[in-house]
Amino acid sequence: MTTKIMAFGEVMMRLEASGYKKLEQTRLLEYSFTGTGVNVMAALSKYGYQTSLLSKLPETSVGNAALSHIRSLGIASDSIVRGGEQIGIYFLEHGFGVRPTAVTYTNRKESSFCQSSFDDYDLEKSLLDVSLIHFCGISLAVSENTRNLTIKVAEKAQEMGIVVSFDCNYRPKLWNATGVNARSYYERMLTLCDICFMTEKDAIYILGMETAENELTKQIEDLLVKVLEKYQIRTIAGTIREKKRETEQTIQGFIIQNKTITFSRKHTLTILDRIGAGDAFASGILHGKIASLSQEDTIEFATAAGVLAHTTSGDSPVSTGSEVLGLVHQSSADLER
Amino acid sequence: MTTKIMAFGEVMMRLEASGYKKLEQTRLLEYSFTGTGVNVMAALSKYGYQTSLLSKLPETSVGNAALSHIRSLGIASDSIVRGGEQIGIYFLEHGFGVRPTAVTYTNRKESSFCQSSFDDYDLEKSLLDVSLIHFCGISLAVSENTRNLTIKVAEKAQEMGIVVSFDCNYRPKLWNATGVNARSYYERMLTLCDICFMTEKDAIYILGMETAENELTKQIEDLLVKVLEKYQIRTIAGTIREKKRETEQTIQGFIIQNKTITFSRKHTLTILDRIGAGDAFASGILHGKIASLSQEDTIEFATAAGVLAHTTSGDSPVSTGSEVLGLVHQSSADLER
Amino acid sequence: MTTKIMAFGEVMMRLEASGYKKLEQTRLLEYSFTGTGVNVMAALSKYGYQTSLLSKLPETSVGNAALSHIRSLGIASDSIVRGGEQIGIYFLEHGFGVRPTAVTYTNRKESSFCQSSFDDYDLEKSLLDVSLIHFCGISLAVSENTRNLTIKVAEKAQEMGIVVSFDCNYRPKLWNATGVNARSYYERMLTLCDICFMTEKDAIYILGMETAENELTKQIEDLLVKVLEKYQIRTIAGTIREKKRETEQTIQGFIIQNKTITFSRKHTLTILDRIGAGDAFASGILHGKIASLSQEDTIEFATAAGVLAHTTSGDSPVSTGSEVLGLVHQSSADLER
Amino acid sequence: MTTKIMAFGEVMMRLEASGYKKLEQTRLLEYSFTGTGVNVMAALSKYGYQTSLLSKLPETSVGNAALSHIRSLGIASDSIVRGGEQIGIYFLEHGFGVRPTAVTYTNRKESSFCQSSFDDYDLEKSLLDVSLIHFCGISLAVSENTRNLTIKVAEKAQEMGIVVSFDCNYRPKLWNATGVNARSYYERMLTLCDICFMTEKDAIYILGMETAENELTKQIEDLLVKVLEKYQIRTIAGTIREKKRETEQTIQGFIIQNKTITFSRKHTLTILDRIGAGDAFASGILHGKIASLSQEDTIEFATAAGVLAHTTSGDSPVSTGSEVLGLVHQSSADLER
Amino acid sequence: MTTKIMAFGEVMMRLEASGYKKLEQTRLLEYSFTGTGVNVMAALSKYGYQTSLLSKLPETSVGNAALSHIRSLGIASDSIVRGGEQIGIYFLEHGFGVRPTAVTYTNRKESSFCQSSFDDYDLEKSLLDVSLIHFCGISLAVSENTRNLTIKVAEKAQEMGIVVSFDCNYRPKLWNATGVNARSYYERMLTLCDICFMTEKDAIYILGMETAENELTKQIEDLLVKVLEKYQIRTIAGTIREKKRETEQTIQGFIIQNKTITFSRKHTLTILDRIGAGDAFASGILHGKIASLSQEDTIEFATAAGVLAHTTSGDSPVSTGSEVLGLVHQSSADLER
Amino acid sequence: MTTKIMAFGEVMMRLEASGYKKLEQTRLLEYSFTGTGVNVMAALSKYGYQTSLLSKLPETSVGNAALSHIRSLGIASDSIVRGGEQIGIYFLEHGFGVRPTAVTYTNRKESSFCQSSFDDYDLEKSLLDVSLIHFCGISLAVSENTRNLTIKVAEKAQEMGIVVSFDCNYRPKLWNATGVNARSYYERMLTLCDICFMTEKDAIYILGMETAENELTKQIEDLLVKVLEKYQIRTIAGTIREKKRETEQTIQGFIIQNKTITFSRKHTLTILDRIGAGDAFASGILHGKIASLSQEDTIEFATAAGVLAHTTSGDSPVSTGSEVLGLVHQSSADLER
Repeated sequence: MTTKIMAFGEVMMRLEASGYKKLEQTRLLEYSFTGTGVNVMAALSKYGYQTSLLSKLPETSVGNAALSHIRSLGIASDSIVRGGEQIGIYFLEHGFGVRPTAVTYTNRKESSFCQSSFDDYDLEKSLLDVSLIHFCGISLAVSENTRNLTIKVAEKAQEMGIVVSFDCNYRPKLWNATGVNARSYYERMLTLCDICFMTEKDAIYILGMETAENELTKQIEDLLVKVLEKYQIRTIAGTIREKKRETEQTIQGFIIQNKTITFSRKHTLTILDRIGAGDAFASGILHGKIASLSQEDTIEFATAAGVLAHTTSGDSPVSTGSEVLGLVHQSSADLER
Repeated sequence: MTTKIMAFGEVMMRLEASGYKKLEQTRLLEYSFTGTGVNVMAALSKYGYQTSLLSKLPETSVGNAALSHIRSLGIASDSIVRGGEQIGIYFLEHGFGVRPTAVTYTNRKESSFCQSSFDDYDLEKSLLDVSLIHFCGISLAVSENTRNLTIKVAEKAQEMGIVVSFDCNYRPKLWNATGVNARSYYERMLTLCDICFMTEKDAIYILGMETAENELTKQIEDLLVKVLEKYQIRTIAGTIREKKRETEQTIQGFIIQNKTITFSRKHTLTILDRIGAGDAFASGILHGKIASLSQEDTIEFATAAGVLAHTTSGDSPVSTGSEVLGLVHQSSADLER
Repeated sequence: MTTKIMAFGEVMMRLEASGYKKLEQTRLLEYSFTGTGVNVMAALSKYGYQTSLLSKLPETSVGNAALSHIRSLGIASDSIVRGGEQIGIYFLEHGFGVRPTAVTYTNRKESSFCQSSFDDYDLEKSLLDVSLIHFCGISLAVSENTRNLTIKVAEKAQEMGIVVSFDCNYRPKLWNATGVNARSYYERMLTLCDICFMTEKDAIYILGMETAENELTKQIEDLLVKVLEKYQIRTIAGTIREKKRETEQTIQGFIIQNKTITFSRKHTLTILDRIGAGDAFASGILHGKIASLSQEDTIEFATAAGVLAHTTSGDSPVSTGSEVLGLVHQSSADLER
Repeated sequence: MTTKIMAFGEVMMRLEASGYKKLEQTRLLEYSFTGTGVNVMAALSKYGYQTSLLSKLPETSVGNAALSHIRSLGIASDSIVRGGEQIGIYFLEHGFGVRPTAVTYTNRKESSFCQSSFDDYDLEKSLLDVSLIHFCGISLAVSENTRNLTIKVAEKAQEMGIVVSFDCNYRPKLWNATGVNARSYYERMLTLCDICFMTEKDAIYILGMETAENELTKQIEDLLVKVLEKYQIRTIAGTIREKKRETEQTIQGFIIQNKTITFSRKHTLTILDRIGAGDAFASGILHGKIASLSQEDTIEFATAAGVLAHTTSGDSPVSTGSEVLGLVHQSSADLER
Repeated sequence: MTTKIMAFGEVMMRLEASGYKKLEQTRLLEYSFTGTGVNVMAALSKYGYQTSLLSKLPETSVGNAALSHIRSLGIASDSIVRGGEQIGIYFLEHGFGVRPTAVTYTNRKESSFCQSSFDDYDLEKSLLDVSLIHFCGISLAVSENTRNLTIKVAEKAQEMGIVVSFDCNYRPKLWNATGVNARSYYERMLTLCDICFMTEKDAIYILGMETAENELTKQIEDLLVKVLEKYQIRTIAGTIREKKRETEQTIQGFIIQNKTITFSRKHTLTILDRIGAGDAFASGILHGKIASLSQEDTIEFATAAGVLAHTTSGDSPVSTGSEVLGLVHQSSADLER
Repeated sequence: MTTKIMAFGEVMMRLEASGYKKLEQTRLLEYSFTGTGVNVMAALSKYGYQTSLLSKLPETSVGNAALSHIRSLGIASDSIVRGGEQIGIYFLEHGFGVRPTAVTYTNRKESSFCQSSFDDYDLEKSLLDVSLIHFCGISLAVSENTRNLTIKVAEKAQEMGIVVSFDCNYRPKLWNATGVNARSYYERMLTLCDICFMTEKDAIYILGMETAENELTKQIEDLLVKVLEKYQIRTIAGTIREKKRETEQTIQGFIIQNKTITFSRKHTLTILDRIGAGDAFASGILHGKIASLSQEDTIEFATAAGVLAHTTSGDSPVSTGSEVLGLVHQSSADLER
């Protein structure tokens, strides 16, 4: 039977100015629906898994369009509760060269999801037969309500024996706006999760940890092995980005299991659309775990998935498993020549 | 010197599905900025007046795009205060034939304008040299805050000797949502205004009036002449719509001054975009008043302006004064045959 | 539990010239995926049913896009088998006024579906828990292969106690091209089906029946009641179209059950996109049957669904149940005035 | 061998605002190339004739695009001389309902064509094997230069035994701007042409003729038979338009030969794009003449061609001969019912 | 008199997803018509030659659009036979960075061209006055029918004393699908042709040749000079591509005549649209031959034409001769600095 | 009070082919309005200044669209005179890689502006309260009329004590076409201006100066300090571009005041749209002058503004002051690492 995977989180509308225009230069916007959960599930459904989303959407034409879009990505929508009135929106103006991409959020806190309560969801039914559920740190940040909701859903999932995946996705700006200290919430999620996406920065800035190492890869190994042990996490993964020059970056993935760190080969990036690339990486790690790939194969697959997500339009990854493997092997082929 | 005219009110973003599609059928939206004030001022600037808007917009790329759009309509933006975070948005799905046009509002109460306070505005400066200021009943309905704000600005304008124009624009759905009784607020605005846009329905449903007349035109005359006298309003105007069949409507304007009602000729409508047509009618009445046209000329101009606004895209009227006159005269020509 | 409904049939790509252009006038085409089965299921999923499609699509990027589109319509894709190489395509040039809409088919016989065999499908699994399955007469016409396949699937469905629905959709052009006599195949489907969509023309031209009646409604009643009895069909339904003048048509639905015919009220049509309107009508009848509506309510709902489908873009109906009811009631409201 | 037909005249760029927008409401324009000659030749190439254009275009990317567009219409471009610097442009804003279509010309007099001289063209070579050449009255109006050029080319054509066709296309606005009296130039063309497109208005306003008849069809017959005789023209044809109401017009064609007038049946129009419809009518008459159709068949074909041209986008007719015949016969079918 | 050049081959429809989207991410496709013959002729008509295409297209609106498009490229369509029902289509999804461009073919074997027979064409008439005719190896691969057809047309052309040009365009995938050995067919074409486009890979994989050389340029010289002699070919030309890194390639052309190889300078490529670049190179060689350029000038022109074709949209080259020369000279200028 | 800045100059329509297409490859053009004055004012209004344009536009729908567009950029339109009939147009085909961008001008000399006379403008009123006025050398070149007009307006401005800014913008092609010697006109403008934009090339080719220096930066310093002294100019500024390879350029700004030259840091360019970048640089210098920034801060701001203008669509700069500062500081941040 196909493995069932779920994500819990917000669905947002993405409204982007065409080409490389600023909003004021165009009267046409292209739209789609997104969110960490949507993106990770979209990628996993491309790899052949049965995926679904646990969220809440308004009963309006905008909510209907969101539902239609989510389904088109191959994600089941039966666990999406309907109600409330609004959906978070973000406006996207693509940058070019030295000009950065600009994002304007609107209406996030008033969204159906952000105002949903634990009782809105029928978890017994929704989580039935689910093997793995993915959470995102942004849900912790948005509001007091989603903060508590996220933890309660994660607790319920753990209780039901479901593998819990958590992407730290720490956004200082959102936390500062709330005036709440992020640490205790993150620590709760870390004890609940089996798979965690984080970097050395999260260990330092959220958990207040320190390291005596100087080199970046050493810092990562030192800090995150400690995190792995302290919070009894089975897998920690993340990426290292380096900016080479104006238009050239490199990306390298790492994965830690059983206190051992493995790095992927380093890819040079060509960026079409940066947003959602971290979610593609996460989806690759989850695939590696569920399909019981080796630690090496897992990190190569996940990093290649992340790299490809920079070369496709939209937040949600659209590369199939065989396209990702194509990049994994092309590279090794390149090395063999 | 050119006459300065101002409107006070909300700026909203209009996001419309292309063609006659529903949101879920397209990924492209066309956007513009609108609002009663924007629309009435846009029309008046087409007739050659110096117009400006008193409102509040966020300091974001969306706010910048709104500003740019408003200026492109010929409306001065110096009285638009910047601040807050959001802007109201409405999604538009154009109907076709028997299928009605559908509108989905989002984020209205959280908009910069709806959360603005009296002190945000420098009325002494903004209202300087202004001859006429236009208000809309929707501002009364949206929230407690805008309700009081609108009345205070109208009071200030009256105090400064500025002609006050008020369009009732009664939206029962919005009022019911607030649980507040509309009547006292409307009565306050009626005592403040010199020019009022309303119909017999407003007299009955808002003011609780009654009439013994049976025929519609008689009811209008009976009720609205009473309103004119009771609230000491100089001019009341409005339109009568009749649906002939599926795709055919007629529209006829009326104006009441000195207890005398004058009707325009009846136009048959061909509708491209219905939204904003009432604002075009209002702009025509205001033009007639400022330019001291005769009662007949005023109502013919205003009704023709309203008719033309049904034949142009977007909320904001784009017909010039000479285009409106073209329709006024074409019709009389038609009658002569 | 939600009722499960299925359709068996071809998925085609629709490529349409923008606006009212001919192909040679534009370089932009809008595309979607369609087919009788897709359309009827799309409509039923809008009314809240769990729907799915039994078909075959190639494992190419075009097949993937078809799958994504079908899911976006709310139709489950688990019973869609992958394989073969091609998909039927039709080019659409929208007519205007007296200029008719033009359709150019390509590549139909070579499609994955039209070349699929009975063994490609796992009917035991796909038909499990299905309450009703819908077939279309076009599948009988396209090729010898689909002809036999359709009948075998219908037999299997009947065997499993599933309600069988059949839309005659008689296309003389396709049948003439094959040189095969349609009658015996249609007779086989009539004995297998519980619900049948047909008109007096089908009885005359396919089944070779005759009537002594002169008036159209009498002819329909006479002929189709005989069909109902002869083939032991529970429900027969269809529509009557009348062309009033260049741009005005009327449509009226009828339904026959227990030898009794009921007519809907007559609607005047405004046509945006004619294709798929018959499928919307069929979906309305199926809804009436499953939801056990009265014969009157069923035919009013179905006819209104068909009318609305003329006012929306694309082949697949997109009106919700409440939008259809809106039109049903608006009309009765109109009558009451 | 296929008959060779040619037109002499200006090529203009048409830049149209998308949808029913005014220029200021959009930033997207669709463009094409047009002109009476282009339009008449495009239609005739659709009917299977070998057509070409005698004109002059600049050697710029705009000129290249014009050439490419003209060829795409099936018109040979070997007689188009290259040189000069500019091309006439017109901006088109589509009207809707009571709002008229608006056209803004620019740069016409400075165009390569309008500044071309007789010596630019190699008439011996270009006119070789040509059976018929079409001229347009606008060429007479634009400038002194084109006025003389047109007459010289027509004289040369007559000299070479080529059938000369001339569409009066009288534009008072253009003539008034020049201060030149149109009559003598028109009279010269009338003596040169074999086929002439004109109406009773042309006889009255250009040629200063009078009639004692009251009814329109009688006036046409009276005046144009006189013109036929006076200038020794073989065929005169034209159309009669009647505006029924806001959105409904009728059109009826007439043709005069051997002092006999024949009228086509009256068509009711649905207008998508009015421009170029007269050219489609002219092309139908020319086809009737070249193919030696009967007077009745010629005027029915030409009028149907004109009607269809109202239902297609763009100036240039795109209906094939069989599509025109479809409308001719559909109508007679309609009459038989 | 202008030299007449012809190509024999298939016309395909190219349907491309907008921007860098995958099919499933968009509902808009841009389309054009293409094929090796179309592309080479389009380029040559840009250099001022009289070009035409020998092919077959269906009598449908799609066939009409193809004809119109081909003419717009400056290619004469008189030798295009009409008939059959279909046209090959390919779907294009543009790659970005490390993500490769993806092409999905459909309906190729069923196309009018691929099912056309020798008798469909009137070669005596079509080939009259033609100086050179171009063939493509893909025609050999598609089906038994086109294989034989191509050879028969080439034989006829040789018989009539027309220069025969042949581009090997070896596609192992297509050949493997047929199970036919390519060698004998290629050998036949090599004996028929005067100009051949091939690389060292073709000599090795198609003709089974071997070389003792190690360096690529030496291998090319060794193998292709042998081919030149063995098959009595006057000119062999081809290109060498090197991938420098992710987004950087170089391209260099070579030409062999009289046993002498000449290389062009090496260009660094910036790729907008790779498809059709080989055809632009071929057109440059043909131009060099017809215009009797020196071997050096020929290979510089052809390589520059190929480089420019990477920088323009669409399969068909659109650069003029002077634009190609611009790049030829700019580069030498660059070297002088 | 906000500083008032004005520009005098032509408004042109820019019509660009979509994507990287040539005109003949598309039927869609995007349009905007531009001109040196428009661009410099647009940028300055983004930095918070009150800007306006002194120009002339026709009273047509094209002129209205221009006015609307100019206002949308935040530029006041009260000093734009209406009249005349035409507007200059340029067609833009974006280059890609080695393929250069192509521009085709049309109709320039016949534009309302180019045919406007000194008396068309009410300079007393328009220049009132203006602190600075910007001129462009292209106005000197276009025609005798604009040549004299520009100088008269500059003289009037100087007379009224307004700071005069002048961008040499020397276009040899335009001057050669007129056959007039540019030098005396430029010398007159140099004596009138306080701020001048020029490079060493202008000194050499326009003013006929010479230098003994070999290195470019030395040549600039040598020549332009002499110009500064000779013509009593307070500030001279310009940029140095270096082409590194195919797709990489660097740009560096310089400013000369009190005989001292200051260079900005060198930026590496990524080019989206080159046109208008020089105007962005000029706007930055003007901002530095008006806001009394240091010489270093001024040149860094101006160069960063120029760099950003290469990364945005359209001629008119759209970056805000804080976005420009973002690039200024990011770079210094980059240096600190």
